[in-house]
Amino acid sequence: FHLPLTAGEQEIAAFHEQCAKYGVVGYGVGPIYMGDEAAVDQAFEYARRVGVKLIVGVPFELQDKRRVESARLLKYVERKVREYDLRYAIHNHGPDNLPYATADATMKWIADLDPRIGICLDIGHNLRAGVNPIEDLRRHHARIYDLHLKNVTAADKSGKTVELGRGQINIPDLVCALREVRYTGVCSLEFEKDENDPLPGVAESVGYFRGVLDATRA
Amino acid sequence: FHLPLTAGEQEIAAFHEQCAKYGVVGYGVGPIYMGDEAAVDQAFEYARRVGVKLIVGVPFELQDKRRVESARLLKYVERKVREYDLRYAIHNHGPDNLPYATADATMKWIADLDPRIGICLDIGHNLRAGVNPIEDLRRHHARIYDLHLKNVTAADKSGKTVELGRGQINIPDLVCALREVRYTGVCSLEFEKDENDPLPGVAESVGYFRGVLDATRA
Repeated sequence: FHLPLTAGEQEIAAFHEQCAKYGVVGYGVGPIYMGDEAAVDQAFEYARRVGVKLIVGVPFELQDKRRVESARLLKYVERKVREYDLRYAIHNHGPDNLPYATADATMKWIADLDPRIGICLDIGHNLRAGVNPIEDLRRHHARIYDLHLKNVTAADKSGKTVELGRGQINIPDLVCALREVRYTGVCSLEFEKDENDPLPGVAESVGYFRGVLDATRA
Repeated sequence: FHLPLTAGEQEIAAFHEQCAKYGVVGYGVGPIYMGDEAAVDQAFEYARRVGVKLIVGVPFELQDKRRVESARLLKYVERKVREYDLRYAIHNHGPDNLPYATADATMKWIADLDPRIGICLDIGHNLRAGVNPIEDLRRHHARIYDLHLKNVTAADKSGKTVELGRGQINIPDLVCALREVRYTGVCSLEFEKDENDPLPGVAESVGYFRGVLDATRA
């Protein structure tokens, strides 16, 4: 979490200033879980205040007692993306977070909705749900607006995040697929390993991705 | 320096034990500057005690008042590589360290000597001396027995070491050349930046190299 969802103008301005010091420009907010319409309202207002045109969201929360029937909530999200004219990318969260386990599963929910509702493809969770994220990328790239870059140790629930070059996902193949489908979104590294000292693993992963990018340039 | 050149059996054994704990296996010693025959003798005896078959050496030291005429010293090194049957890779050290500024310059000194005398190609120093290390690799690969992997900011004396993916040397091109010439030596990362906290830069560089390797595999 970068900021609390209730953050006001001043707190947000201070955050932007802090980011600017390091040359960091935010491009979205989330992932934000939202189990009812009030939570959706709050998320869209928060995105507006932060000043971004992308929400990574989960409009369904199995653990949330307030959750409403998912399709109805998605219709409410659709109203909101039209009202705010921003993109809403549903974050697939693997086998622990039905119904949005994979990009493919997510697509079944959103195919007929406003195209501003799309997917944030979490390649690690996609594989943990047993589905090759590269295949899902090729199938659904037109609706993939954001990407969580990571790697995992196994193609099932037991898979844990590791450094980008050390997992089961073939990152060079992923990058080739991204080039082929002309992906224009961002690839955001998400690194959940070594929570108390993530810098070496983050640095290795960023280096690995850049190496693959440089070596696959036309 | 891993060990003092005078290190005895016990100190060396403790060092090997320390390395083994981390799965590290040393494959050579050096770079060792040697300005006269006594220094050559010391280096070869040290390599024998450490138990490696590769010395990275500089048989000439401009700053060393004891230095002897370089060609004569090289003949002495040749006697030694025959006596010990090990490889002696001369480390090219860029524009500050004539006569071995580049692999090409080094080759002029050793072409007619025993082939166990070769080159440790420092790609950064090669570029700092104004010569593309990839071209030198292609020209002289048969005598290149070790490689110092790094990148530098400029193709002249002002060039400083940076993370592997951030400098003037095209690492994907280097890796393709290494594959083409079927290089069988080691690529050793040499990272001189951030002396007090090198880990993030080392991790990024190792990640970058692995990314390039994975993306260029046939």
